[in-house]
Amino acid sequence: MSPKITTELLKQLRQAMRNPKYVQEPVQAYIVPSGDAHQSEYIAPCDCRRAFISGFDGSAGTAIVTEQHAAMWTDGRYFLQAAQQMDNNWTLMKMGLKDTPTQEDWLVSVLPEGSKVGVDPFIIPADQWKRMSKALKSAGHDLVPVKENLIDTIWVDCPQRPCKPLITLDLNYTGVSWRDKIVALRSKMDERNVLWFVVTALDEVAWLFNLRGSDVEYNPVFFAYAVIGMNTIRLFIDGDRVMDPAVREHLQLDSNLEPEFRIQVVPYGSILAELQAVSAGLSPKDKVWLSDKASYALTEAIPKAYRYLTPYTPICIAKAVKNASETEGMRRAHIKDAVALCELFSWLEKEVVPKGTVTEIIAADKAEAFRSQQKDFVELSFATISSTGPNGAIIHYKPVPETNRTLSVNEIYLLDSGAQYKDGTTDVTRTMHFGTPSAYEKECFTYVLKGHIAVSAAIFPNGTKGHLLDSFARSALWDCGLDYLHGTGHGVGSFLNVHEGPCGISYKTFADEPLEAGMVVSDEPGYYEDGSFGIRIENVVLVIPAETKYNFKNRGSLTFEPLTLVPIQTKMIDVNLLTPKERHWVNDYHQKCREVIGAELERQGRREALQWLLRETEPLTGQ
Amino acid sequence: MSPKITTELLKQLRQAMRNPKYVQEPVQAYIVPSGDAHQSEYIAPCDCRRAFISGFDGSAGTAIVTEQHAAMWTDGRYFLQAAQQMDNNWTLMKMGLKDTPTQEDWLVSVLPEGSKVGVDPFIIPADQWKRMSKALKSAGHDLVPVKENLIDTIWVDCPQRPCKPLITLDLNYTGVSWRDKIVALRSKMDERNVLWFVVTALDEVAWLFNLRGSDVEYNPVFFAYAVIGMNTIRLFIDGDRVMDPAVREHLQLDSNLEPEFRIQVVPYGSILAELQAVSAGLSPKDKVWLSDKASYALTEAIPKAYRYLTPYTPICIAKAVKNASETEGMRRAHIKDAVALCELFSWLEKEVVPKGTVTEIIAADKAEAFRSQQKDFVELSFATISSTGPNGAIIHYKPVPETNRTLSVNEIYLLDSGAQYKDGTTDVTRTMHFGTPSAYEKECFTYVLKGHIAVSAAIFPNGTKGHLLDSFARSALWDCGLDYLHGTGHGVGSFLNVHEGPCGISYKTFADEPLEAGMVVSDEPGYYEDGSFGIRIENVVLVIPAETKYNFKNRGSLTFEPLTLVPIQTKMIDVNLLTPKERHWVNDYHQKCREVIGAELERQGRREALQWLLRETEPLTGQ
Repeated sequence: MSPKITTELLKQLRQAMRNPKYVQEPVQAYIVPSGDAHQSEYIAPCDCRRAFISGFDGSAGTAIVTEQHAAMWTDGRYFLQAAQQMDNNWTLMKMGLKDTPTQEDWLVSVLPEGSKVGVDPFIIPADQWKRMSKALKSAGHDLVPVKENLIDTIWVDCPQRPCKPLITLDLNYTGVSWRDKIVALRSKMDERNVLWFVVTALDEVAWLFNLRGSDVEYNPVFFAYAVIGMNTIRLFIDGDRVMDPAVREHLQLDSNLEPEFRIQVVPYGSILAELQAVSAGLSPKDKVWLSDKASYALTEAIPKAYRYLTPYTPICIAKAVKNASETEGMRRAHIKDAVALCELFSWLEKEVVPKGTVTEIIAADKAEAFRSQQKDFVELSFATISSTGPNGAIIHYKPVPETNRTLSVNEIYLLDSGAQYKDGTTDVTRTMHFGTPSAYEKECFTYVLKGHIAVSAAIFPNGTKGHLLDSFARSALWDCGLDYLHGTGHGVGSFLNVHEGPCGISYKTFADEPLEAGMVVSDEPGYYEDGSFGIRIENVVLVIPAETKYNFKNRGSLTFEPLTLVPIQTKMIDVNLLTPKERHWVNDYHQKCREVIGAELERQGRREALQWLLRETEPLTGQ
Repeated sequence: MSPKITTELLKQLRQAMRNPKYVQEPVQAYIVPSGDAHQSEYIAPCDCRRAFISGFDGSAGTAIVTEQHAAMWTDGRYFLQAAQQMDNNWTLMKMGLKDTPTQEDWLVSVLPEGSKVGVDPFIIPADQWKRMSKALKSAGHDLVPVKENLIDTIWVDCPQRPCKPLITLDLNYTGVSWRDKIVALRSKMDERNVLWFVVTALDEVAWLFNLRGSDVEYNPVFFAYAVIGMNTIRLFIDGDRVMDPAVREHLQLDSNLEPEFRIQVVPYGSILAELQAVSAGLSPKDKVWLSDKASYALTEAIPKAYRYLTPYTPICIAKAVKNASETEGMRRAHIKDAVALCELFSWLEKEVVPKGTVTEIIAADKAEAFRSQQKDFVELSFATISSTGPNGAIIHYKPVPETNRTLSVNEIYLLDSGAQYKDGTTDVTRTMHFGTPSAYEKECFTYVLKGHIAVSAAIFPNGTKGHLLDSFARSALWDCGLDYLHGTGHGVGSFLNVHEGPCGISYKTFADEPLEAGMVVSDEPGYYEDGSFGIRIENVVLVIPAETKYNFKNRGSLTFEPLTLVPIQTKMIDVNLLTPKERHWVNDYHQKCREVIGAELERQGRREALQWLLRETEPLTGQ
């Protein structure tokens, strides 16, 4: 992978930073966050402004360009990738390391006195604006909104904003109608004495209306906002997408509904004017509810006295707790996904070992091909990480022709992949060796497995936040002086974003909400050696009630049920490092894989994959 | 324990809340925090205003009195105690439980529109003021400073503020002279471009000047502030305490020091005027550093533009990392403390079993008597928790005649106690049974022990914050549906406060600083059954570097060394529930107790205690 040459682009951007056409006064620094106007993690090509200016296209990162410097903040998953994709104009700021300055501290250290720092107010979340603005102000600088996005002004061949057809989801998939979701939302609004609710996140709009789209790759969402009042539903969406009869029927646009359930469809671009109009009609004590991560532009449209901001919206929280239909859908999706992976691994074993002709890209494509054979397959849920040997150490690696390695019997292979099915979203990582792993590789793999099991088998009281479980995943690695520089788990949507809030498992104490039965998260500890290999073991797990011997204060307990049912390669396990309890966990897990996935492979007539599954799920025997 | 009758007092307080002598406009609510003007946890009798108005005298709690209501917020340690000490005028607000409203939310729910909420600006920390003021404002109310403390206006027999003699500590104890501490502080100020530093916490003043006092029971501190400039040292302290020749010599008050090390001694009460004077002399960009927990009154004295607030001061952080002299002192103190406890437990065994005449108070007094026989003993480090049977479930219980139970062979006995020695501070909890514990009692004890060991033996990377270790202490309890409603550990001072920042081990994600080699914390999981028994196993442990097989990113690892060396009653352990690793930990620990404490008991000629120690440290044998 050769870095993007950005010298000329940076020159143009710096000119734009001084151009009176765009800025009232020159800005001495310009911030390019990675999000879009909805603070999405995955974004459409037209929103990949940070990647355009820097070359670094990982999912997380913030660029800041000053007259003299260009710096990129990203986290441990992307240190290697960012270093490879960026040229010497850029300084990599490794977030999470002790000596790395925050963006604010860095700006203060490099800017001349009384500087102006510009940012697109539609792209920066209000909470970030507030923090940064305060820090800059206290050092004598100013954060200023620059309405015209300066990257767009220099991006000649910027792609168009997508506007693809919508998919309607019926009750079999969603369990709850959009109408009932609106009723529930209004009751939450009523509880908090709120008159209006602004839906800004794309997955929240999609979830609320039981619609899906494909405007953003991997995330079945569409560009839209919604504003919900006690008697009003307004959907801000472009194009003739709502002319589709199925969509009109689904949203009951042509029915004679009670007024409070009539959906008004208005243009996407009119959201700002709408919020200004709503605000103008408010009386003292009236409140408008929106996420504190909504853009600064939308947040500012509502006068401060009327704003009701929360870190997680009621939609975000309701969406995270999967109902029975969604849970069943997730189970079905994971069974199909496991079938596809058994096919893949069985095929790889046949191809890699004797022939040595399978590259990372071929393996990734094959995985997609097998998945696409399954019922209700829609697309992948993220770019497949198919990585062998040293590429495995690039935590969010995606194979491209320049980096593409051939799988061999001498290297560890790491596959982190997932798909969107109409009934659920999957995300699974398996790490395998097609030859004979070294004792050291097995040792590291086994520590990671111990961490995976420690989380998956953990029992914890109701009300526990996910971050309190993170150290369980690391303890076995820590004991030997090892660790990994990423969180342990993220929430997973139901035929929605593969990363979703409000829960997760991380050493970072973000304001996560407590885990609740019905939530779905990933459990994915790892271990990575730069230049050598990467190991990660990831299941998607469902939070379920746990039976315990006692029940302190009647609080009840929770634990996890693995939804992912794909064998964990026993060849990589040093059984001597497992406790009897851990060994039983592996054997029970493999027994369940055999039963559930075996039956489905049988049903689908996939004989070779079934044989592979049976071989790979032989019980471990004790020391 | 009968509750304090507060009807008349509340009536008087409510009158004061409307009295134009004290308030410009009536306040509809009055907040009584538990701290003093230094935000101390332990406070002098004259500062026990919350206990005076409510009867509840636990170490943590906030009272709020409105025209109609009186409510008390406290945490899980004190739910039982507060319920017992308060009469029906009071509503107990159990912090940490899901349905308990925050103080702000509660105020908003009970106050009439446009209310004023009063508080003493010297008692409320600035960060709390800010949070509460914001929340109240957004609901249409106002937080107002009431200069005259309203409790003091109705507290007829309020005791005088103490003003006891000072103790000077020489280099053998402190390792670093006050002069070198000032140099180090000024260098931190220089790094941050700060001109003035305001020392507001009593233990920080004591640590900085290598002085101790006895103004507050259990905490060897004295009422004082300090203001440090680049060429100025001002100590705000009352009385003729600095007339003591030893103190004058220690502070070199009569030497011809370089001007920047000359200490100016000024009256305690002049701090506010001093800060106003300092502020008046500042130029733009000048900064004054103080803790964000300093009082609102002092913080407000410095105009916002000049303030530099941090959650932990450089003194707090330096104080937490014990140097070699302090570490050695802590070790010595813990050896002496263990000698005293071996004496006590040996004596209890002789007295309780055949005679049954030892009460909780007698046991606590006896513990103090044995401690006071040890060299450099100064006082206890907190009120001894000597509790048997159901009293053990009151987490911060202190025996009083009304509650005093007799130790017996039928109940679990919990002793949480500690002392101040000139060379260090101790804090240890042991839970014992003098008869035959039930299988259930042993089971619970063993889970707590497993949690204690999981923290004590944990290995974790440099840079890890203590809160990431908290779940290790709970895991064995969680597995069976059990838990405890308090944190797992707190920082411990060196002949200073038994609770100190900036580190700790808690499920609450307060902004703790990473653990560093040299820090000292407690490790004290527990399990409590209301009405039956309490179990807690507490050691004070020192953070030390750990040797590990590997060393990821060269970060280095840490672990803990127990400073407390008192046997853990093996009779209470269900050995079948321990892993071999845990069994070895217990045996190694007891071996060390034998060697280190055995030698000291021998040296001090304490034969019976030595025999007890040898019996109690017999190795556990495997399943």
